[in-house]
This record gives sequence, C-alpha cells and structure tokens, in this order.
Amino acid sequence: MARIADLEYTLAVMGWDQETYMPEKGADFRAQQTSTLSGIAHGMSIDKELGDILKKLHKKKGLDKKQQRNIDESYKDYKQSKKYTTEFVELLSKTTSECFQAWQKAKTTNNFKLYVPHLTKMVDLKRKEADLLGYKKHPYDALLDQHEPGATVAFLDVLFKDVREQLVVFVKKIAAAKQNSDAFAHKHYDKDKQWKFGIDLLKQMNFDFEAGRQDISMHPFTTSFSSQDVRVTTKIIENNLKSMIWSCIHEGGHALYEQGLPKEQYGLPCGEAISLGIHESQSRMWENNVGRGLPYWKANYKRLQAYFPEHLKNVSLDQFYKGINLVKPSPVRIEADEVTYHFHILVRYEIEKALMDGSLKVADLAEYWNAQYKKYLGITIKSDAEGVLQDVHWSHGSIGYFPTYSLGSFYAAQFYHQANKDVKGLQQHIEKSNMLPLLKWLREKIHKHGKFYTAEELCIHVTGEKLNFKYFMNYATDKYSAIYNLKK
Amino acid sequence: MARIADLEYTLAVMGWDQETYMPEKGADFRAQQTSTLSGIAHGMSIDKELGDILKKLHKKKGLDKKQQRNIDESYKDYKQSKKYTTEFVELLSKTTSECFQAWQKAKTTNNFKLYVPHLTKMVDLKRKEADLLGYKKHPYDALLDQHEPGATVAFLDVLFKDVREQLVVFVKKIAAAKQNSDAFAHKHYDKDKQWKFGIDLLKQMNFDFEAGRQDISMHPFTTSFSSQDVRVTTKIIENNLKSMIWSCIHEGGHALYEQGLPKEQYGLPCGEAISLGIHESQSRMWENNVGRGLPYWKANYKRLQAYFPEHLKNVSLDQFYKGINLVKPSPVRIEADEVTYHFHILVRYEIEKALMDGSLKVADLAEYWNAQYKKYLGITIKSDAEGVLQDVHWSHGSIGYFPTYSLGSFYAAQFYHQANKDVKGLQQHIEKSNMLPLLKWLREKIHKHGKFYTAEELCIHVTGEKLNFKYFMNYATDKYSAIYNLKK
Repeated sequence: MARIADLEYTLAVMGWDQETYMPEKGADFRAQQTSTLSGIAHGMSIDKELGDILKKLHKKKGLDKKQQRNIDESYKDYKQSKKYTTEFVELLSKTTSECFQAWQKAKTTNNFKLYVPHLTKMVDLKRKEADLLGYKKHPYDALLDQHEPGATVAFLDVLFKDVREQLVVFVKKIAAAKQNSDAFAHKHYDKDKQWKFGIDLLKQMNFDFEAGRQDISMHPFTTSFSSQDVRVTTKIIENNLKSMIWSCIHEGGHALYEQGLPKEQYGLPCGEAISLGIHESQSRMWENNVGRGLPYWKANYKRLQAYFPEHLKNVSLDQFYKGINLVKPSPVRIEADEVTYHFHILVRYEIEKALMDGSLKVADLAEYWNAQYKKYLGITIKSDAEGVLQDVHWSHGSIGYFPTYSLGSFYAAQFYHQANKDVKGLQQHIEKSNMLPLLKWLREKIHKHGKFYTAEELCIHVTGEKLNFKYFMNYATDKYSAIYNLKK
Repeated sequence: MARIADLEYTLAVMGWDQETYMPEKGADFRAQQTSTLSGIAHGMSIDKELGDILKKLHKKKGLDKKQQRNIDESYKDYKQSKKYTTEFVELLSKTTSECFQAWQKAKTTNNFKLYVPHLTKMVDLKRKEADLLGYKKHPYDALLDQHEPGATVAFLDVLFKDVREQLVVFVKKIAAAKQNSDAFAHKHYDKDKQWKFGIDLLKQMNFDFEAGRQDISMHPFTTSFSSQDVRVTTKIIENNLKSMIWSCIHEGGHALYEQGLPKEQYGLPCGEAISLGIHESQSRMWENNVGRGLPYWKANYKRLQAYFPEHLKNVSLDQFYKGINLVKPSPVRIEADEVTYHFHILVRYEIEKALMDGSLKVADLAEYWNAQYKKYLGITIKSDAEGVLQDVHWSHGSIGYFPTYSLGSFYAAQFYHQANKDVKGLQQHIEKSNMLPLLKWLREKIHKHGKFYTAEELCIHVTGEKLNFKYFMNYATDKYSAIYNLKK
C-alpha cells in the first residue's frame, strides 16, 4: 500500500510541477511520463497478490478497529478497481481526450453542437461504468459513490429539495432589499503586496510552512505529497482583491486537513481524507464561515488597510464586510457567492441525474440548462459558452463530482455550528487573530481520523446527527438577514 | 526503453523539486518515494524480457548505424546492470548512507578519524564492484568506465603526466608575476539585479526558456526531464558577483547540450549525452573558453555596468577581465580557477587509483593528501575539513568521477580550438553578443548525435584527432601569458 502511495504522490509532484513551473514544450513528454506512472500504479493496485492478502485479512479476526477499517476500505477499493476491464479504461481515456478537445473548441466558438456527439459518447460510457460498478437504486449512485462514498440520489434529493424550497425563496428576499457595493475591491492592487498578505493569512491559519508552501498557478489548487509536504497555489488578479484572499483561505483549509492527517497511516485509508465533500467542508468552513465572517475581519481588516492605505482608508469595516458578502445571482458558478452557488450545483445535480437515468438527452441539454437557470437564478443565459459549456468537468468524465461542492458547504455549516458550541469563546479568539483553538478542534474531531469514519459516521461523531440542511439555512439566514436588513 | 526513461525522468523531477522548493519536513517521505521509484526503474532495466529482445536485436543484421548503436549500447548497459546482485546493491546503499553521515560528522568536527572506518568499507566495496564488473588492466578502469565510458588508467596517466609536467611549471611562472585584483567582485551586489543579469546571459546563449527554466538552489545544477524540459539552477551570493555569473553560464552550457539532444531518440542511447566528460566539455567551454574570454566581456561588460553603475564605473574592462581571471593556488577545489583546478583533480586521481589498487590505505589518506597539495599547489593544508574532507563524492561511493572534470576542460579546449577554425569570425560574433554561430556548430557537431559516437570517436569526428592535452595547454599559455605579461 505504501508503494502504491509512493507512486500516487509522485504523480502529484508531476502534476504540481505541470501547473506551476513546467515550461510549455515540456507538456508532451510529461503527459507520456505521467501516463506510464499511472499505468504502473494501477497495475500495482489490482495486483492479484495484494488482492489475496486483503481477502485473507478481511476475514481475519482480532484486528483492532483501525486495522479493520484499513483492511475493509482497501479491499473495497481493490474490488472496485478490478471491475474495470482494460478495454473499458482505454476507451474511457480515449473518449475523455476527444471529449475535452471538443469541449475546448465548442466553448471557444460558442458552438454547443460540436460538443454534443462527444458528450453523448461520454454519458453512454458513464452509464456503462455505472453498470460495471453496480448500484442498488439509481445508476447515478454508482458514480456519486466514487467521489463521495455513501452518497446516493435518495440522500441528495432530500438536501436539494431544501435548497429548492428554502434557499430560492430567501435569495428572492435579498434581491428585493437594498444592495451593497464592492467597487473598492476592483481598484488596482499590487501583486507583491497581495502575495504577502496571502502568506500572512496562511500563517495566521497555522498552515505549516515547514511542511508545505504556496505558489502561483492558473487555477488555485491544493495537492499533497504526504502530510509532511502539502502544496497550495493561488492566483493573483490585480484588479480583483477578492480572488487572491479567498482562494488563499480556501486552499489553506484544504491544506490544513492534509497536514493534519496522521503520517503513521501513510498509504492507508486511515491516512487519507474521507471524501471530496468532507475535504470541501474544510476549505469552505475557512473560506466562508470563518473567512467571510465579521470577527475574521475585525482581526484582519487593519492589516489589509496597512498594505493598501490609499485604496481602503475611506472604506469602513462595515462597508468592507458587506462588500465581500454580496449575494447576487450570476451565470457563472465559479464567480458565485456562497448562497446562490448552490443553485448552480442544483442545476448540475438535476442534469447529471437525468442524463444517467436516460430521461434527458445531451442534445436537449443547452435548452434545459437555460430553463433551469431562469427558474432558479432568474437569469437569462446569453450564450452557451457562458451557459452549459462553462465547466470542464463533464468533458473529463467527472459526473457525480459537482454535488460534493454543496455537500462541503452544508457539512461546513453543521461542523462550524458545533465548533461554536464546543470551543469556548471561539468568535473572540478569531477576533484576536487566534485561529489555533479552531484548528485544534478540527484536528481532534476530523483531521486525525483520516478515513476511520465514513462521512455520515463522522458527521454523527462530531455533531451528534446526520447531515442536515438546516444548519446551512440558519447560518445563511442569520448572516444575510443582518447584512441586508431583512426581517426574519 | 521509453518507459524506463519515463521513470528516470520522473525521478529527475522529484530530485529537482527536492533541491529547489521542497519544504523541510517533506524529506523523509520523498526519500521513500524516490527509493520505490528507483527500485521499479531498476527492475525494469534488468527485466529478462528486455534482455532477450536486446540479445536478439544485437545479433540481427541489416540495422542502420544508429539503430545498431542504440542496440549495442543498450545491451551493454543491460549486461552491466545484471552483474549487480541484490545483496551487493543493498550493501552499497547501506554503506553509502552510513559513510555519508560519517563524512558530515567528520567534516563538521574536523575529525578525519571518524571517517576512516566508513571510507575503508566503501573503498573495499568499490574494489569488489570493480571485480564484479570486470576490467582488463587496472581495477580503477571498471569504475572510470561507469562515468566516462572508455576512459582507463592508461589513457588518463598520459593526460595527467602532462598536467604534472607542464601546467605545474606554468603556474609557478604566474605566481612570480605581478598579481591582479578582483576586489570589485566582492562589494554588495543586489540579488534581484544579479538574477536579471543571469537571465540575460542565458537568453543570449539561446537557452530555450520555452523548453526549460532557471531557479535557485543551494548548489547550482542542471537536470533534464526530456530535451523539451531542461532545468538549470543558480546560487546568488550578494558579496560575490562571480558565483552567479559563471554558475549561470556553466549550467547554461550543460543545458544547451540537453536541449540539443534529438527528441525523437527519447529513451534511447542516441537521445542521451555521451559521458560526464563530454557533458562537462559543454559547460566548461561556455563558462571558461567563452564566458571568461575578452570578446564575451566586450559584448557584456557595459550591460553589467548598467546594472551596477556605482560598483563598476571605475573598473575598466581590462581590470575586470584580469580580475575575473586570477590564477592562484588555493586549498578548495570548487573555488579554484580554471588552471589550478586541474591540480585538485590530479591529487584526487592519484589517490583514487592508489586506493583501488591497494597501494594506499584510507588511514594514510590525510597525510598523503596534504603532501600532494604541498607538492603540486605549494599549499599547506590547515585542517582536514578544508583538506581531505572537503568533497562529498567519496562518501557517496563516487570514485572515478573526479577525472571527468578535467577531461571536460581538455575536451572543451580542443573543441573550441576547432570551432574557431570552422566558424568564420567566431570571436567577432561573440564580441557582438551573437552566440548563435557557436551554438549551431555545437548542435551540428556534438549535441544532435547523442551517444551515436563514443567520446573518443566524437573527438576524432569533430577535431580529427584523439583528446590531446596540448590544446588546453596552448589555450592556458596564450591567455594567461597575456594577462600576466609572461614571456612565452
């Protein structure tokens, strides 16, 4: 298992270098090198000898709980991996590459039709994949389980019903209220100063710079080469202060989770993150619940003003706080605020589910997309490039991924609610730039366990109950009712 | 072969990251990951199926010359690799690790005795390795061949005899002449400006920044992930202008060789550098023959003065040129000038030869070292830390490596002599900052062939004769007689 992890983490180094420092012409051989390494890693992960050992250990009695969990998870993964035939893997790889190219061209030329045959092939293939993997109720369940083990249509339908019925109504109230401005964030903010402020924030979060670093990349991301070497990246846009700040805090949240995983469990499930949803709960808690909160800026606004006195001297903390918390429907997911964001996911969730059960055809997708954006966000999509073509995910075959973003926010709200009960004076600590009590709580409650719990078990372990949308709804209602002066 | 190369280049990425950006705590897992990958690569390179194919192709008729060369070299490498038993590899790895630690401790505490038992073990092991690999005349030949295929004691004895008889005498003449000063190089030179000037020099050399980049590391080095992605590093010392400039040009020379290797021969011998000696000829030609020459500074001195007007306005080009070409015996190899450098190698060559044939014991090494430094450099070594303990190489088991440094300079002189005959007005081109004619000549004569020629064959192919020390001797005599006003 450690040897497989060695290869997977090596692939992560290759990927990190590719996104940060690799010169242009290096791409072709890098792709080849990565593919060779992936093939070797995959071969090791479906090795018969490994399977035999896991099978034997799986039946063995007298293992402690952590050992048992490691064996069970590894054996499950092994059996899942074995379900893929070589033909299927190769076809998926070929289709992905073609589909991605078609998506790029379709997006650049705003021509959805170019994408239709390729995405149709991809969806057919993913339906085959669901059959290959097996599922109890809905073919989409098989794909969801890959990104968020345990998640099902039955589980998500409940959550997104709440989004549809409660959050849509609440955003309409906000839309009717007096609007705030974030004009201050779009002056020219010097790159170097932004960089330094971002590093300050990471340090304050207790990101361990002896076990990680930050660099620049086109799209911010976090990657890990072990819990002892976790890399984050950020992106600095000189006329948009928001981009760097919250990407830094967001990736910092991911990174703290990775740095908190137990190193003695390297290569084993209990040394790994639970799921994308739980990972995203860590990034979003720091980004939104903490990093877009008033106490956080009571701690940091003067510091930011000191970097940019000319820009911010006439912007009060209250104006700043309101300006960084605008709620406003917009057509592009990655630019959405923390509330309307979930409408973007809702649309994608409904679409993926329908594509997988065959009730929606790719050919009808653009029309459907635009109708749903009108319905939930009240927005008229002006072009497919900005509409159905905006995300790369489907072209990569990533179906079942989007819901984990919303799950992340919902878990974050529920965990943070609990943290405020468990940690005395948490908000006062944050106001004084002391992030350690929160981090200690996260380490103890979440990080150190790795995959010892499933997402559902963890949620019960930490908060005493299963994931419940009400925590997010309460968080959003309290915060934005105050910001927009709404009556509850 | 391409798959093996994919792994080797991946290891190079891991190594590069380790030396440039890896945070401190990442070291342990990185070592483990690297070891796993090395093991897999080694396993592939001694795979029986590969051996069978190579054996079959080796006998096959009708291959073209390049194919034949690729097969011959690969088969030779394969057979060499097969000679190592697993026990031997593991023992060597363990001994290296212990020996390196002992060297570090011995150097820090200036206590050679601590190192003696470990280095003795290492030397014994390297003598066993020579037996394992086989040799015709001298056990040292087996080790030399690993770093410089084809090099033997018989071949090097001739060269170093010339060094001893001609160069030692010449340096004594220089020592008796009026000395120049390089005080100007030790003012405070701003890091960022040094960096920018270094990048200018690399660009001027036609280093392809779309197929490579420069970063900072503790010790400058060049590494390659394919001919399309070649990384150099440099080191900037603020009170020593020389360090950055000539490390930049030196590594740039290595890098141009790597970038010039034919990419369609990826993973095959004809896509690889010939030997360490030939590699070093490329770095040293650019560093010394070109980069420490007067024409080069006619092209670049004004540029440098423009970066540092305060520092250099009162230093004439002539003073600068003389200051960057001081010849002066000193105890430390890596700080030596391009002439006395070879005395350092001479000492090491004599020692390695004697250790390998058993005529010198490790226990007597420090005394012997000091005596040779007195004899060839006229220097009294004040401490073992600065003497016999100065280099890390032996602790790594690198015996047979040092001579390639001198070979590099000697090849460089011979090649450069030929370039000046072949390329019309080469010195005038350089004076005008036009490095392209030289690069084109190197590409055509050396780079594009990869390992198609052996070092000896290449030398004949390029210059019409075997390696001959007289070219270096003539180069040094002409250049330094002028600088030091010596009568020839």
